Amino acid sequence: MTLKVSIIGASGYVGGELIRLLLQHPEVEIVQATSQRYAGKFVHKLNPNLRKRTLMKFSDNSKLESVDVMFLALPHGIGMNKIDEFMKAGSKIVDLSSDFRIKNKDEYPIWYGHEHPRPELLNKFVYGIPEIHREELKKAQYVSKAGCLAAASILGLYPLFKNKLVETENIVVEVKTGSSGGGNKPSLSTHHPERSNVIRSFRPTMHRHTAEIEQELTFGEKPKIDFSATSVDIVRGILSTAHVRLINPETAEKDIWKAYRQEYEKEPFVRMVKESDSIYPYPEPKILMGTNYCDVGFEKDSRGKRLVVISALDNLVKGSAGQAVQAFNIMCGFKEETALEFPGLHPV
Amino acid sequence: MTLKVSIIGASGYVGGELIRLLLQHPEVEIVQATSQRYAGKFVHKLNPNLRKRTLMKFSDNSKLESVDVMFLALPHGIGMNKIDEFMKAGSKIVDLSSDFRIKNKDEYPIWYGHEHPRPELLNKFVYGIPEIHREELKKAQYVSKAGCLAAASILGLYPLFKNKLVETENIVVEVKTGSSGGGNKPSLSTHHPERSNVIRSFRPTMHRHTAEIEQELTFGEKPKIDFSATSVDIVRGILSTAHVRLINPETAEKDIWKAYRQEYEKEPFVRMVKESDSIYPYPEPKILMGTNYCDVGFEKDSRGKRLVVISALDNLVKGSAGQAVQAFNIMCGFKEETALEFPGLHPV
Amino acid sequence: MTLKVSIIGASGYVGGELIRLLLQHPEVEIVQATSQRYAGKFVHKLNPNLRKRTLMKFSDNSKLESVDVMFLALPHGIGMNKIDEFMKAGSKIVDLSSDFRIKNKDEYPIWYGHEHPRPELLNKFVYGIPEIHREELKKAQYVSKAGCLAAASILGLYPLFKNKLVETENIVVEVKTGSSGGGNKPSLSTHHPERSNVIRSFRPTMHRHTAEIEQELTFGEKPKIDFSATSVDIVRGILSTAHVRLINPETAEKDIWKAYRQEYEKEPFVRMVKESDSIYPYPEPKILMGTNYCDVGFEKDSRGKRLVVISALDNLVKGSAGQAVQAFNIMCGFKEETALEFPGLHPV
Amino acid sequence: MTLKVSIIGASGYVGGELIRLLLQHPEVEIVQATSQRYAGKFVHKLNPNLRKRTLMKFSDNSKLESVDVMFLALPHGIGMNKIDEFMKAGSKIVDLSSDFRIKNKDEYPIWYGHEHPRPELLNKFVYGIPEIHREELKKAQYVSKAGCLAAASILGLYPLFKNKLVETENIVVEVKTGSSGGGNKPSLSTHHPERSNVIRSFRPTMHRHTAEIEQELTFGEKPKIDFSATSVDIVRGILSTAHVRLINPETAEKDIWKAYRQEYEKEPFVRMVKESDSIYPYPEPKILMGTNYCDVGFEKDSRGKRLVVISALDNLVKGSAGQAVQAFNIMCGFKEETALEFPGLHPV
Repeated sequence: MTLKVSIIGASGYVGGELIRLLLQHPEVEIVQATSQRYAGKFVHKLNPNLRKRTLMKFSDNSKLESVDVMFLALPHGIGMNKIDEFMKAGSKIVDLSSDFRIKNKDEYPIWYGHEHPRPELLNKFVYGIPEIHREELKKAQYVSKAGCLAAASILGLYPLFKNKLVETENIVVEVKTGSSGGGNKPSLSTHHPERSNVIRSFRPTMHRHTAEIEQELTFGEKPKIDFSATSVDIVRGILSTAHVRLINPETAEKDIWKAYRQEYEKEPFVRMVKESDSIYPYPEPKILMGTNYCDVGFEKDSRGKRLVVISALDNLVKGSAGQAVQAFNIMCGFKEETALEFPGLHPV
Repeated sequence: MTLKVSIIGASGYVGGELIRLLLQHPEVEIVQATSQRYAGKFVHKLNPNLRKRTLMKFSDNSKLESVDVMFLALPHGIGMNKIDEFMKAGSKIVDLSSDFRIKNKDEYPIWYGHEHPRPELLNKFVYGIPEIHREELKKAQYVSKAGCLAAASILGLYPLFKNKLVETENIVVEVKTGSSGGGNKPSLSTHHPERSNVIRSFRPTMHRHTAEIEQELTFGEKPKIDFSATSVDIVRGILSTAHVRLINPETAEKDIWKAYRQEYEKEPFVRMVKESDSIYPYPEPKILMGTNYCDVGFEKDSRGKRLVVISALDNLVKGSAGQAVQAFNIMCGFKEETALEFPGLHPV
Repeated sequence: MTLKVSIIGASGYVGGELIRLLLQHPEVEIVQATSQRYAGKFVHKLNPNLRKRTLMKFSDNSKLESVDVMFLALPHGIGMNKIDEFMKAGSKIVDLSSDFRIKNKDEYPIWYGHEHPRPELLNKFVYGIPEIHREELKKAQYVSKAGCLAAASILGLYPLFKNKLVETENIVVEVKTGSSGGGNKPSLSTHHPERSNVIRSFRPTMHRHTAEIEQELTFGEKPKIDFSATSVDIVRGILSTAHVRLINPETAEKDIWKAYRQEYEKEPFVRMVKESDSIYPYPEPKILMGTNYCDVGFEKDSRGKRLVVISALDNLVKGSAGQAVQAFNIMCGFKEETALEFPGLHPV
Repeated sequence: MTLKVSIIGASGYVGGELIRLLLQHPEVEIVQATSQRYAGKFVHKLNPNLRKRTLMKFSDNSKLESVDVMFLALPHGIGMNKIDEFMKAGSKIVDLSSDFRIKNKDEYPIWYGHEHPRPELLNKFVYGIPEIHREELKKAQYVSKAGCLAAASILGLYPLFKNKLVETENIVVEVKTGSSGGGNKPSLSTHHPERSNVIRSFRPTMHRHTAEIEQELTFGEKPKIDFSATSVDIVRGILSTAHVRLINPETAEKDIWKAYRQEYEKEPFVRMVKESDSIYPYPEPKILMGTNYCDVGFEKDSRGKRLVVISALDNLVKGSAGQAVQAFNIMCGFKEETALEFPGLHPV
């Protein structure tokens, strides 16, 4: 059975990756990929990797096809205002924007600067990290994909919070990220001579993904996360370095690993990494380019109770389009790995 | 039917890529991957992208398994001296080194500085570019993969020489290449602080791949190629820029394209590129990372009779392991694209 | 004696470098740096390296100060149309654009697509390569700086053509260049995710700098240069690889070096490089970042009569602002090295 | 008056930078630059930027010249064991290693894994950050340069701790650093194909520089610093991101700036950066390549009491050779900026 899907807002980087992945999906037919800016143009004009792979063209947004599943790859703020229209055309929806991620409507003014127009819908959207919400995803009609930086940080920290191994305060999460996360709109700050060779603090405080991370790591008391983001000179990839404090500083490393194994051992897309005899001893986004993996690891500070949790992923795949396809596979009953098999390259 | 294959000299970058590709091949079982340096170590220690993909270990070279197909990924000069041993263990052989590429034994002293020890075998190895030697490959027992820089240059120029559209002298080919082509042995010149940010002339004259290119472009008179290679700051990828002269400067662009189409239109892994309305108007290796594509294009100089031929590929895939797997697929009667489906990433 | 200078069109990368260099010049006072876009803004807003170095602001173009020397750092086509105004305000002019480089007015339609509006002025501008035009520069009132790619190529080839050692046809020059040469206006093709990791053919034929190179290498018969340019993933730096043919293939390497030494031995900013025992055996732009050096070298092909000439420079210094300051120093009677002493960094 | 200086262990990256800087110093004569590995070789063979700048050769360590000032650029552990010999040859010493940085001998076993052989000398070495120890440096005979990561972090945090504005616990410092900090010895992990495109956690806990930072920020109670270091794909540059907690969360931003201004306003090499209307709003190492600047800034979290302190420098200059020369200038009574005037490049 082939499902009809559409991609709304398909001309960004996330849209391009969705097209790439869904073209390989044996159970999917892409019936529409919309773009305001590029309507009428061949998809491969923007995505030169898809030359000879598809002759699809972008269509405009005016006439939405009725589909089994609609993927929304729109900028923040558009989907939430047109959601009725989208719900009419798409039986199921996977929203890749930040419009329905946070379940507590009171957080929107704090992090997004405005009230949510449709707070009654927030709980209809399952937060799209399969490793945490798989059972809900199986029954979901609507999914809201996690933010890329949030996904890396949450997957790194989840077993610790779920098992109440760490304190809920004095948590510092510092993510390092490549340039593709900012989308494909050029500006002086993304101009190659300015953006190359940087280690650039781009959001030292009040990054929007903070709210998602705190939401997903709440088991009892809501943790307070001090989050910062820094840009570095790669195109794809995120490394999240989280500094948390063990409630019991005597907790043995092997017990911490046990918590991770319990959570992730059977996961197809999470790998636990600690290989001191490798030149890749910790998770490293370099080798994850194009893959749907999230690699996680940690190191216990021998001084005091700090645990440094390291997690890595490709912001456009496990952080975005791949995560969405994985959630889609679960939601539609397909094998979870479908279209996400690429193992990644080395060296790269 | 599953074929048993082995990879000899599997701990280099080419070996790692062979393992990655062959693990995905539905008709293949890798029974042995040898390495002197890393015997006994897990394959994923050197190839961290293969974590959770394989638990294979490198074995030593002392006991070769009998296999249907043996892949040789050894440095130059080893295979040619142990070839009897390899021919005994492998019913078929795909050699990825430069040991059997050149058919004229007189070229070895010029380019390799020594006589070939087994000249009688040279013609038993089919030169491994499928687009040129597909019919021979179908019947081949032994294959010798083309050099990575040679493959890019030959695929770019082949239709012009085959159709005798260009002169056989005053040809300049300047290739630009990433660092992975040099293998995984560290040295001061490959040390990151020295190797980063370079545009480094590394072989202005007498590059060994010259001989292969001249061999493959000989239709009547052997052409003389003035070849140079320059290193740039990427890991994967080759761009070959070839400057040739039209015999008839009045030849129309469309007639040149016709020669290319005739040759490549049905090829699964060659794409003809000329898209003036794209920001990727010519072939560009960036978007080919991990793929088996060779993209080719050209531009006619409005002044005089020069044609600039541009071709691009990933040195470790179409330039090496992918090319070998494609030849292997043909030789063994599998679908040519098997295990080589990855379309490549954008942006990357 | 302090000279008053102004910089017109100062908010581009070349303008920023001119400000940096001239601020260090002990005999210079910058009285005006104009910018349409950034008038009223501090210079260091665009040039963050100059924080705490200057409190100068950009002024608008409407009121030009009378100065001893005016530097024009405008895009092509503006200076040539406002030259009377500029000549009135500046006693001397150093034009960094391409408006007055070519002396034969018939070349403008071919390379620039339009007639030159003021052909009678072309010969009043001395072409600004000091190593070739020092005597003229000493007496010059107007100077036209060489193009960055042209400067590298000309300095590499000049001794060969001057001494008639090489043929005037079948010359291929392939330059590789960083992103800063394209200026500071963002676009999709310069957007970091698109522009990173490239080896991008950007002008395979009909590059405008061809005309300058041919002009400067004319000794008797005008040579025909087949020129191509390729972009690579660095910010600063040019490598020019020129393939020329010796008239007498028996010419010994030492005689070729002699021609180079004769020309460049006493030059403060040209270095002859051939160090086979170094990991930088040929000229390499990496180590020239920020310097006014042009490094030159060559390799003789043992097969046939080809000579590969390699030259490197920093496009924004020796290729642009530094070249202009060097010419200015000569024109004004200052020590030629003034403000250009920076030796460059290693590693970088 | 010209001082005679020597550089012991001159063939590393720090040694190369010392040579570069001291060659430009008008009051200095380098009488000896020693290297075990490269004795007898020209300095420019290893430092190609110094071609045509010096004809000095490396000498071996066997015969030390008597000098006014000796710079030690040796790996950790050598200087502390040969210090008598060095003190005999050098009237004054600037040690760039970590051998005499920490004043409390009990810290050595914790961070360096061994006892200090000469604890009685520790207090004879003034810690070399001029902004903190200028008065001591004026009278110093022996100086111990700060570690590069430590220097960045200390300069960022010093005004806060000195003025007791922040708590002494729950401090997380995450530094990002380029590859040149690891020195010039090649290995698989620094091999370009492996080291490119990384965001690599290289020392999540127990980094040795922690001890220095805690030492220098002790005003009353010794703070506890949770330090981590991550490698990114640049050659030069460090960004330190420090997360500290205000004792009084009501402290106004302007009062914090006041503390910074008090400390740094007159400093020639520290710049306070907060420019929200620039694309470089925070300190950024990119534009500091080759300079002796340390740029510092901060952002106050509107949620809670966190302050994010951002500081940047070039690890080989302000983090190493430049810092040493600045201390040397103070110690010898020269103008502090001598030989350190380079303003840095943009773009780069």
